Amino acid sequence: MTTYGRLDRLGEELLDRSLEGLFVTTLVNVRYLTGFTGSNGAVYVSAGGHAVFVTDGRYRDQAAVEVPDLEHVISRDLLGEMARRASGADLGIESHTLSVDALARLTEHLPSTRLQSAGRVVEGLRETKDAVEVDALRRACEISTVALGQLLEGPLVGRTEREVARDLENRMLDLGAEAIAFDTILAAGDNSAIPHHSPTDRLLVTGDLVKADFGARVDGYHADCTRTFVLGRADDWQREIHTAVRQSQEAGVDALRAGSAVADSYGAATAALETSGWLHAFTTGLGHGVGLEIHEDPFIGPSQTGKLASRTVLTMEPGIYVPGRGGVRIEDTVLVNPGAPEVLTTMTKDLLEIG
Amino acid sequence: MTTYGRLDRLGEELLDRSLEGLFVTTLVNVRYLTGFTGSNGAVYVSAGGHAVFVTDGRYRDQAAVEVPDLEHVISRDLLGEMARRASGADLGIESHTLSVDALARLTEHLPSTRLQSAGRVVEGLRETKDAVEVDALRRACEISTVALGQLLEGPLVGRTEREVARDLENRMLDLGAEAIAFDTILAAGDNSAIPHHSPTDRLLVTGDLVKADFGARVDGYHADCTRTFVLGRADDWQREIHTAVRQSQEAGVDALRAGSAVADSYGAATAALETSGWLHAFTTGLGHGVGLEIHEDPFIGPSQTGKLASRTVLTMEPGIYVPGRGGVRIEDTVLVNPGAPEVLTTMTKDLLEIG
Repeated sequence: MTTYGRLDRLGEELLDRSLEGLFVTTLVNVRYLTGFTGSNGAVYVSAGGHAVFVTDGRYRDQAAVEVPDLEHVISRDLLGEMARRASGADLGIESHTLSVDALARLTEHLPSTRLQSAGRVVEGLRETKDAVEVDALRRACEISTVALGQLLEGPLVGRTEREVARDLENRMLDLGAEAIAFDTILAAGDNSAIPHHSPTDRLLVTGDLVKADFGARVDGYHADCTRTFVLGRADDWQREIHTAVRQSQEAGVDALRAGSAVADSYGAATAALETSGWLHAFTTGLGHGVGLEIHEDPFIGPSQTGKLASRTVLTMEPGIYVPGRGGVRIEDTVLVNPGAPEVLTTMTKDLLEIG
Repeated sequence: MTTYGRLDRLGEELLDRSLEGLFVTTLVNVRYLTGFTGSNGAVYVSAGGHAVFVTDGRYRDQAAVEVPDLEHVISRDLLGEMARRASGADLGIESHTLSVDALARLTEHLPSTRLQSAGRVVEGLRETKDAVEVDALRRACEISTVALGQLLEGPLVGRTEREVARDLENRMLDLGAEAIAFDTILAAGDNSAIPHHSPTDRLLVTGDLVKADFGARVDGYHADCTRTFVLGRADDWQREIHTAVRQSQEAGVDALRAGSAVADSYGAATAALETSGWLHAFTTGLGHGVGLEIHEDPFIGPSQTGKLASRTVLTMEPGIYVPGRGGVRIEDTVLVNPGAPEVLTTMTKDLLEIG
């Protein structure tokens, strides 16, 4: 895994913050910076970009393969080993995840160092994806949409939500996903009105709206896609809310452009829902960054002050939820560009009538 | 979910520590105390056993169902809402998991309160399982062993590690597991020498040792089981290491008795490996508590000072790993009693010759 540029970028961020080094203890950030995929590891990075990676003996061989070019220390005392190799008057910690006990141990080792919050500096770097990351996300999204296409060849009526969800997950694994990205949401009929419904033994019947929110994981990167379809012929009310969500979703996607305010896409998507008269029935978040985590920075909201950078990858997922009746969500994973955004979950947004 | 006795037990522990309340912010501990299964929630518990549960708006309905009898607050500011309802000069925090930033926010809300580490007090309560928990663990273990029994009816030769692992996982789900407990280890031939091998596209061939480390999850509780078998007839060296592991494992299980030192079971299992001449090839941990987490307190090691309590559930999993050749691990999930321990993963430990 090519991660060098990442350490250099982090070094620059540390200099900007007048920090001489950073204790990276958040596992997903360790993976991002080093390529290490095990369950226990940390990395100390100096502002000059030098890094020392620490993990325990279980991961000796794996670290040799995954982190070939960094200095390694094998020890159960990750914090102590990093502290012994750190120097400087002002060093950073990941205070949003570092535990109170862990800070106390670092302080014991470094009594004359000012240990300061570095904020979400690595999460900030992770917002902008490099070519390797975009490639993994692209493959994860392709597996996801191909799997849904296969599933929709049916039959679906007469099977349970749970069975259909597992069928979809197995298809993603058959197509090369290393894992599913998150527990699949498969919600039929009135259950489709529950935004984050867990699949049950409810049977799928003709006339149901069926919402599938699902994704594959490839090389640690998560796809996130939702489509809603109808079993049999769509009723007028189903078609109405589907059209309203689609217009909102397409307006939101179109606003995901480099240099635009994150809040602009929120404004565009919700303005469309207001025009159609359905804004009151939109009750969830609108979108989030996606990468090594299924939910990561940036989050899309009305009070977000940031601007979008090129090569940010986000979801756009408005929905309309009518309790007791049904709901529609359409969600894409989207790559931000200077011009038109690229939808990675390429699949029709027409209201499909299945079986 | 019956969780009342748990809050009362926690209240007593707080009194013993001269704490007037505890901010429970570790999600799995929140689940243990309240029954809440969502991804964002916290609970403030006073030493008198009164509790206030806080979660965000996404979980309003779920909290009403899962936490019917506690006072609820719906808010995104979990810490602030708890702090407003807390009182006392000495309140506890879970300093092993609470972030540095979260402690700073609590301190802002409660400037004149001493916020002190309560240690792993809830983890300590969780070591001893109540009847509801033992029942869930029993069902998870039964699903696991029945699934492996089905898998061993074969055929296995000619399929990949990955295919066989997924087959086993699907059988657990078909048998009623809500999820798999952890990523299945399915390691054939020389891969069986790698303690925590991830399944690959390697084909299973006659003569292979095959190690399967797997488990089902039921109502949040994890089973953990390993068996190692041979495809075709076992060679003498395979039989030798299997016998050595089995003797070690049975000695270790037998030592898991209420009132015994945790370290005694380590001594018993490793003494057997020393007698057979294979102690040098045992390179992993020997066992761990299992429950709402796949790895939880207590951990079995030579320097563990604690004694085992009745109704503690642990794994016992010695192994012999011969790099480049193969390995054997046998693991059970075991319920500690005053007398003989009860093995929950009931399945033969004979060296099975399959297909």
